[in-house]
Amino acid sequence: MPNPTAAILIIGDEILTGRTREGNAHHLAGELVKVGFDLRQIRVISDDHATIVAAVRELAAGHDQLFTSGGIGPTHDDITADAVAEAFDRPISVRADARAILATHYAARRVEFTEARLRMARIPDGAALIDNPVSGAPGFTIGNCHVMAGVPNIFQAMVAGLLPRLAGGAPLLSRNWQLMVAEAAIADDLRTLATAHPEVSFGSYPFVTEGNYGTNLVVRCTDPAALEAAFAALKAAFPEGQ
Amino acid sequence: MPNPTAAILIIGDEILTGRTREGNAHHLAGELVKVGFDLRQIRVISDDHATIVAAVRELAAGHDQLFTSGGIGPTHDDITADAVAEAFDRPISVRADARAILATHYAARRVEFTEARLRMARIPDGAALIDNPVSGAPGFTIGNCHVMAGVPNIFQAMVAGLLPRLAGGAPLLSRNWQLMVAEAAIADDLRTLATAHPEVSFGSYPFVTEGNYGTNLVVRCTDPAALEAAFAALKAAFPEGQ
Repeated sequence: MPNPTAAILIIGDEILTGRTREGNAHHLAGELVKVGFDLRQIRVISDDHATIVAAVRELAAGHDQLFTSGGIGPTHDDITADAVAEAFDRPISVRADARAILATHYAARRVEFTEARLRMARIPDGAALIDNPVSGAPGFTIGNCHVMAGVPNIFQAMVAGLLPRLAGGAPLLSRNWQLMVAEAAIADDLRTLATAHPEVSFGSYPFVTEGNYGTNLVVRCTDPAALEAAFAALKAAFPEGQ
Repeated sequence: MPNPTAAILIIGDEILTGRTREGNAHHLAGELVKVGFDLRQIRVISDDHATIVAAVRELAAGHDQLFTSGGIGPTHDDITADAVAEAFDRPISVRADARAILATHYAARRVEFTEARLRMARIPDGAALIDNPVSGAPGFTIGNCHVMAGVPNIFQAMVAGLLPRLAGGAPLLSRNWQLMVAEAAIADDLRTLATAHPEVSFGSYPFVTEGNYGTNLVVRCTDPAALEAAFAALKAAFPEGQ
């Protein structure tokens, strides 16, 4: 049975204008591999209501799980929750459970619970909350869409709490074999290996270090036996690697 | 007149499996801002022929310019050139001009011009070549789609040669104002400012440093006078910033 599929939607002008180098998708990609989701797409879009609605609808319909990052804070440019509610045709308002979580969080820290902070309790009807152990304001799951914060340490904490609740598949296993030759020099042999092991993915990633060409060969498969057979064949074909 | 739009398509399983943290889109996003393109989307997809064809067609049709990264090397998993040719309904074969560039490059370095390396001279009919001053093998432009390498230093060199040939718009200008307060504390005033300066984009980016909350406020606009007016208003509203 193939693994369930996933997509990641990153929402934020700060990425598209080059101000911030995105890292949340990279973090989540590494976690999804471990719990057996087949990540098919990462998409970055701007803080625009109609754009978010359309992307959420398309990616949620096309994948088993959709994870979003960004735009759930207290300021005017945080519009993700409302857009996701519209994408799923649900009403959205300040919800008592989210409000209670924020009230408890702020009271414990003697922080004023302002109108701006109350905005972070806006949750679509029927959504389940995602715990935020860092700063209180929860994310939420509606349908197959998981809405999380953009601040990296909060995003990572939400992912850590969320992923064990989702039904994944077989972890994608991988092995790396590094050669200090240009990839063109091993392309024919590598193609032969890939053809002989159709259930295993063979990736070839060239690099240059101190003026010397090298290639990282990566085999990937969810079946441990098939992976080890392919890796043994790879090592035998290129014994000079490590 | 609004700036021309752009999209970036990153092709590579190594990103989706979490092996590699993507950096080419971040680099190009920063360059596009300077030459006046409005980057609307970044998308990362896997090394799958049908997926690449569909994404290239959709993103090329929906934006003024499309830039791709990855999958134009000599190995079996380098399938971008063929997929882009299909997306534009053009034949693809080894082209004499690309072959001559590679032959000259390898001869100068006493490197054998193998069958695998010849694969990198496969260019769609009617495409214009993009110079690769690093390793010879060219990228290409077909229609509004610019196909470039995934290796970061080669990608950057191709971008540097390509962008001056494209008709951009007004550079997107920005100013940053940093406050050591949580963003919720300034959300109301910030919304008032954003409403008063509708032609300027106001972004709010929270961070935590040494246990203290802070917020970077960023104003962005292509009109220098409008930007400076908004920035002056921002500084006046939050004089404690820097």
